[in-house]
Amino acid sequence: MSDKKYTRREFIKVSGMGAASLSLLGVLGCDTRKSQAKPNIIVIFCDDLGYGDLGAFGHPTMSTPNLDRMAAQGQKWNSFYVAASVCTPSRAALITGRYPIRSGLCSDERRVLFPDSTGGIPETEITLAEALKKGGYATACIGKWHLGHLPPYLPTEHGFDYYFGIPYSNDMDYVGGENAFEKLRYRPKSHYWNVPLMRNEEVIERPADQNTITQRYTQEAVQFIKQNKNQPFFIYFPHSMVHTPLFASSEFDGVSRRGLFGDVMAEVDWSVGTILQTLEQENLAQNTLIVFSSDNGPWLSMLQAGGSAGLLRMGKGTTWEGGMREPTIFYWPGRIKPSTIMDMGSTLDLFPTVCALSGAEVPKDREMDGYDLSAVIFNGLASPRETMIYYRGEQVYAARKGPFKAHYITQGSYGMGGERTEHKIPLLFHLGHDPSEKYNIADQHPEVIQEINQVVEEHRKTVRPAEDQLEKRKKKA
Amino acid sequence: MSDKKYTRREFIKVSGMGAASLSLLGVLGCDTRKSQAKPNIIVIFCDDLGYGDLGAFGHPTMSTPNLDRMAAQGQKWNSFYVAASVCTPSRAALITGRYPIRSGLCSDERRVLFPDSTGGIPETEITLAEALKKGGYATACIGKWHLGHLPPYLPTEHGFDYYFGIPYSNDMDYVGGENAFEKLRYRPKSHYWNVPLMRNEEVIERPADQNTITQRYTQEAVQFIKQNKNQPFFIYFPHSMVHTPLFASSEFDGVSRRGLFGDVMAEVDWSVGTILQTLEQENLAQNTLIVFSSDNGPWLSMLQAGGSAGLLRMGKGTTWEGGMREPTIFYWPGRIKPSTIMDMGSTLDLFPTVCALSGAEVPKDREMDGYDLSAVIFNGLASPRETMIYYRGEQVYAARKGPFKAHYITQGSYGMGGERTEHKIPLLFHLGHDPSEKYNIADQHPEVIQEINQVVEEHRKTVRPAEDQLEKRKKKA
Repeated sequence: MSDKKYTRREFIKVSGMGAASLSLLGVLGCDTRKSQAKPNIIVIFCDDLGYGDLGAFGHPTMSTPNLDRMAAQGQKWNSFYVAASVCTPSRAALITGRYPIRSGLCSDERRVLFPDSTGGIPETEITLAEALKKGGYATACIGKWHLGHLPPYLPTEHGFDYYFGIPYSNDMDYVGGENAFEKLRYRPKSHYWNVPLMRNEEVIERPADQNTITQRYTQEAVQFIKQNKNQPFFIYFPHSMVHTPLFASSEFDGVSRRGLFGDVMAEVDWSVGTILQTLEQENLAQNTLIVFSSDNGPWLSMLQAGGSAGLLRMGKGTTWEGGMREPTIFYWPGRIKPSTIMDMGSTLDLFPTVCALSGAEVPKDREMDGYDLSAVIFNGLASPRETMIYYRGEQVYAARKGPFKAHYITQGSYGMGGERTEHKIPLLFHLGHDPSEKYNIADQHPEVIQEINQVVEEHRKTVRPAEDQLEKRKKKA
Repeated sequence: MSDKKYTRREFIKVSGMGAASLSLLGVLGCDTRKSQAKPNIIVIFCDDLGYGDLGAFGHPTMSTPNLDRMAAQGQKWNSFYVAASVCTPSRAALITGRYPIRSGLCSDERRVLFPDSTGGIPETEITLAEALKKGGYATACIGKWHLGHLPPYLPTEHGFDYYFGIPYSNDMDYVGGENAFEKLRYRPKSHYWNVPLMRNEEVIERPADQNTITQRYTQEAVQFIKQNKNQPFFIYFPHSMVHTPLFASSEFDGVSRRGLFGDVMAEVDWSVGTILQTLEQENLAQNTLIVFSSDNGPWLSMLQAGGSAGLLRMGKGTTWEGGMREPTIFYWPGRIKPSTIMDMGSTLDLFPTVCALSGAEVPKDREMDGYDLSAVIFNGLASPRETMIYYRGEQVYAARKGPFKAHYITQGSYGMGGERTEHKIPLLFHLGHDPSEKYNIADQHPEVIQEINQVVEEHRKTVRPAEDQLEKRKKKA
């Protein structure tokens, strides 16, 4: 059942390139004088980017040269999961290292936080930023937060020294008149959405001018790096893009063959390149781990304004692979060898992995759902992650063990991909042989379904009731 | 309408990596003493490999490290077409540089040559091998020919000094009893198919032992390289794999996470790596152009034994992108810079391109359908190919100009993808914005349809009737 046996070999094969690039680094000379015991950590998180939306992951017309280079020179993860297929719970999982069912940041009715929500990330949760801050890190959140916009829930209340960004999705606070959904899909005006832009706890602009938002986030990140270069820092950088409505600054208007979606992503790619350049200029590149991923799959009902899950089935909002598997890159020149990892990883794993690298503490008083991936990242060993639970809201819809994934319930999203269906006999797919989830092999492997059932059962035993944060809202007048 | 404006910029962007790799080559030292005016040419052609079936083109569980490295260090073509979506006409196009309608090697009734066929490539056609042989090249065809198996049509009658391989598809001459189609899909025995293996004009084994066929092709290619290293050579290497029935030698049994299809492709990848290694050992790598592609898209009705077109629509047998766009790599260390080409190219273009490189003559007495791609390959300039005609049999089903593709007729394959439908108003797709051909925009761009109609009309004017080679067959007793 395990597909462990391949890992070592693949790593070795691919590292032929690695060896060359590493000697190249030697030739170019890497300055290690400033090496710190504690590496800087930058997590760049896109919004609604699909598995198939980077050149390195097979898109024919997207222009993402910086990310493609990072994928080639760093570690490309082909099977990396988020813990929910929509914004709020997915971000909660990354920042707490826990399935969102544990923090109450998922719900069956309201799937994310809205402007009228009164809930958010509970005080009792320990965020990755808090762990790192305690470990001596300077911490910043730059971009879309979406874990609560009222004062107790803002980033600066949860371990971040600094916050700059929009507190929830860029398609909220709609004030653009009729046909809201239609307006999302085509070249809209930024002021159709009265979204606030915040610095720390203050709203500094409303509506946020989304045309320049990627540029301004980038400037903020560059500034934070420069200001904190003499101490270890953690930047959590969740872009507002490429969530619709889509906005690129004028410099990126028409640069891509993929249309507006491609232009917007080209600007995100430029942003990534600017971060890399800054790290190099500041002589920090050799001591900084960059992780790139996205919060969930492509918003398919946005049509051409939405992304592509490539060969994966369905997209955002679903527990099919297209909803929850993300194009992910780990990049650290001189430390991470060029390689492709086919084993599983998850945003849940960032918490313990980053703590292992930085010497920060993983909370011991609660259930954590992540694994330390260091051995995969640095030594190409098998991933400790052998299972993944696929939640939709508060319910387990599917689970994976090794290459096998069982679907207990399937459901599409926004009228695409079918009604909610409970499967008496779960659907079973072999994601190695059949990454597109086309061929149900449940009748051939009842024993595998039993094993996966047990994984889910064991997981369920660890789940305690938590207050639902997404149902809380202002009373109507 | 043209998407030319991006080309130069993309090339420059990507070539950041190129510069590094090129200086690396300098560091490692390239021996140019043996540089010849005429480069060696190796065309490696897979069978039924889909656009999404290489790691470099986004597959999550295929193991193709050698091809992935070639794509990273060479030129990755994202929009490279074959001229037919099935074996015989696709191969005819490559080897003649002409749409197969001109040679009679396509037909509406019988789409490929069968063992009872009596036709084949006409004597009047000039093959790439003939052009190169005249230009002083040693020439070999190693693998699946499929342009006629009777004596007048064999490779050695059409410009190849040497031939080793099977003369038609590996699923022909079926003698395996009931359920022929089913047997294709699962781990079958090689002797279910009584396919001949030939050396030059002689059958040397029947049934061909397909379990070792990739290994033996590779040995033959290595031997040909070693024997001809002191003169320019051309090897046309059309693999029998990954066409079903699938066979890997015991060394590759179970090496891939993708199942049998992945094991078989891993062996083809090993074969490619072995060729590269041989060129390096013989000090020929810096003077050899390798082109990798496949004859048509994935055979989707083979289910898990068939490949994947990635994000492209449909597969083999159709004029949707999945049938005719192939994962293509141009590789020439020291000459071709690492880059991604989004402009169009085609197997039709190999004839004039290779002739330009080798000083061989392109026939002037007939319509040729290819363009010399040298300026794209070496200088990253815009591709001269701005149009592509999509034939199914003898009929034009679709045509592309710039990013736009119009479908006049659509049809699925083997019961998948819909019945034959003539479109009074053609379907129109923007392949840049919508590579998956999801969003018909015909009503928005009638003028584009007019332009594409004109392309087809101009093309049709150049087509003269040719004898149908695929209808010719033995009379029944």
